[in-house]
Amino acid sequence: MNENINRRIVLAARPQGRPTLDDFRLEEVAAPAPGEGEVLLKVEWLSLDPYMRGRMDARKSYAKPIGIGEVMEGGGVARVLASRHPGFAPGDLVLARTGWQTLLVAGGETLRKLDPAPDPPTLALGVLGMPGFTAYAGLLTIGQPKPGETVVVAAASGPVGSAVGQIARIKGARAVGVAGGPAKCAYVRDELGFDACIDHKAADFPEQLKAACPGGIDVYFENVGGAVWDAVFPLLNTYARVPVCGLVAQYNAAGTATGIDRLPATMRDILTKSLTVRGFIQLEFSAQLPEFQREMGEWVRTGKVRWREDVVEGLENAPAALIGLLEGANFGKLVVRV
Amino acid sequence: MNENINRRIVLAARPQGRPTLDDFRLEEVAAPAPGEGEVLLKVEWLSLDPYMRGRMDARKSYAKPIGIGEVMEGGGVARVLASRHPGFAPGDLVLARTGWQTLLVAGGETLRKLDPAPDPPTLALGVLGMPGFTAYAGLLTIGQPKPGETVVVAAASGPVGSAVGQIARIKGARAVGVAGGPAKCAYVRDELGFDACIDHKAADFPEQLKAACPGGIDVYFENVGGAVWDAVFPLLNTYARVPVCGLVAQYNAAGTATGIDRLPATMRDILTKSLTVRGFIQLEFSAQLPEFQREMGEWVRTGKVRWREDVVEGLENAPAALIGLLEGANFGKLVVRV
Repeated sequence: MNENINRRIVLAARPQGRPTLDDFRLEEVAAPAPGEGEVLLKVEWLSLDPYMRGRMDARKSYAKPIGIGEVMEGGGVARVLASRHPGFAPGDLVLARTGWQTLLVAGGETLRKLDPAPDPPTLALGVLGMPGFTAYAGLLTIGQPKPGETVVVAAASGPVGSAVGQIARIKGARAVGVAGGPAKCAYVRDELGFDACIDHKAADFPEQLKAACPGGIDVYFENVGGAVWDAVFPLLNTYARVPVCGLVAQYNAAGTATGIDRLPATMRDILTKSLTVRGFIQLEFSAQLPEFQREMGEWVRTGKVRWREDVVEGLENAPAALIGLLEGANFGKLVVRV
Repeated sequence: MNENINRRIVLAARPQGRPTLDDFRLEEVAAPAPGEGEVLLKVEWLSLDPYMRGRMDARKSYAKPIGIGEVMEGGGVARVLASRHPGFAPGDLVLARTGWQTLLVAGGETLRKLDPAPDPPTLALGVLGMPGFTAYAGLLTIGQPKPGETVVVAAASGPVGSAVGQIARIKGARAVGVAGGPAKCAYVRDELGFDACIDHKAADFPEQLKAACPGGIDVYFENVGGAVWDAVFPLLNTYARVPVCGLVAQYNAAGTATGIDRLPATMRDILTKSLTVRGFIQLEFSAQLPEFQREMGEWVRTGKVRWREDVVEGLENAPAALIGLLEGANFGKLVVRV
């Protein structure tokens, strides 16, 4: 790697629906130099996550959109090459908002030193990082599963869904996963220990889900939307809780949905079943981070919470990997070895 | 009144959309006699409320439907005519699930003695009864308005909406009402003391609502649905709370709505604004009833919470009054002098 050249991937165009490779552009630019209080970082691992799709659109969301020509956003694990901040020394491993690039300069106050680093350090991007914390905070604060209740989560082999189901079981609830294809479902059941996992690609998926939830659904951790929501919704019990942390299935939708307006029926059930539907971003719960790190760290160490990574080699392959992620092509937490 | 004959209104047919007078039938039957532990009641006041429309449909809701030929359900204030229960004596005034009829027999354990009775006793059906408690529990437990926040409520001249706005102001929040027509709006502003009240019949209703909520909306107490929801939704702030206690605007809808599917955009905002949408029935919060009775009783006595009744004369006029209620024809809490 040439430490004078920063290779980076920028947003070339706003996707119309599903992103294509043409929406991204690989550039090489001169490496930046750190100013006072800053450090120069070499990115070792980049995390790919569904929220990135939202940032590619122009419309306002909880974060501002990425501008055309700007570096794609993302978090990563990086090594300090040079430091002008007293808290960091060359060789330190840090968690940073790196963006999709090989080199960057960052203010020391934006970094978290991984000391000791988890093994592998990419856990800080997955089960011990933002996805794991999303699962932990959303499930425990909003979902509040009680022993014997049924918790359903989609993308159950992914970093959020896998943590949701395993934490639900630690809390004494039944965990029913939804995933795409028999291999993922077998993993969720056999390796992660969910009580059941249903393949959403099956023709009779709604019936299978219903059979796997004979007592109805008490918590639906919503991270996909779409057809899974349609199958889950009629099964929700009175007082069910629905933490909403993502809607991957509709991120690629362009324009306005037409056909049946599902809102009146949805509101009717929210009323008659006393449902709670609650959107959230994990940042809201950051006061719980120390507790999460302690508790989840222990669960991972003792094997109570298991995880799986899907490693993509090379920054140049990140665009195709993100496109695949939005369609469920990954199997486990998707990270790029930069 | 003949105390040997019970006049009652039964459900003659299930409404297709908007109910008509033909969906009801007035009957005269022999008066019942109380058994051991029961009392014979003469109904003096019958409460008419939006939830009754739901009971006329066959589909499952939080309560079971009224059967064809069965007495229309409802709560009322009744006088004890004869008692075979040690807790009640002739002349006692009680709150009861009376149904739409003049005479009934009820088990003593289903009654609440009004002792002392509020003045007028119909307050037990309105601001000091189920509608007032719906406002109190939903606003304070789910809405949780903070000083300076903006609370919006529709049907603001009605028994629930009027209490929501006045309690919001007691808690230091701004109260913006929505009501139908200038007379109701003037009452809500001038008599109830809301900060603003917008006429949903105005052509520029969404713009007027936006102008009345320059800081956005923090709590929307949902009791109507429909066009008000559409105007409110884009104005909701991050972390806004939406207690859902009724959807009057869609109760008369038959079949499935088509056109634009509003659900994906709704879920997107729930996610990106971290909204809480929470359905409820006041019964869920019945542990708070004593506190409500004490606190709301004090607010009513001291004039901090004001109320208004719309009195219909005669049981035979209840069907037309309920049909009108569903279209906003009443002005204040609708009660029938039986």
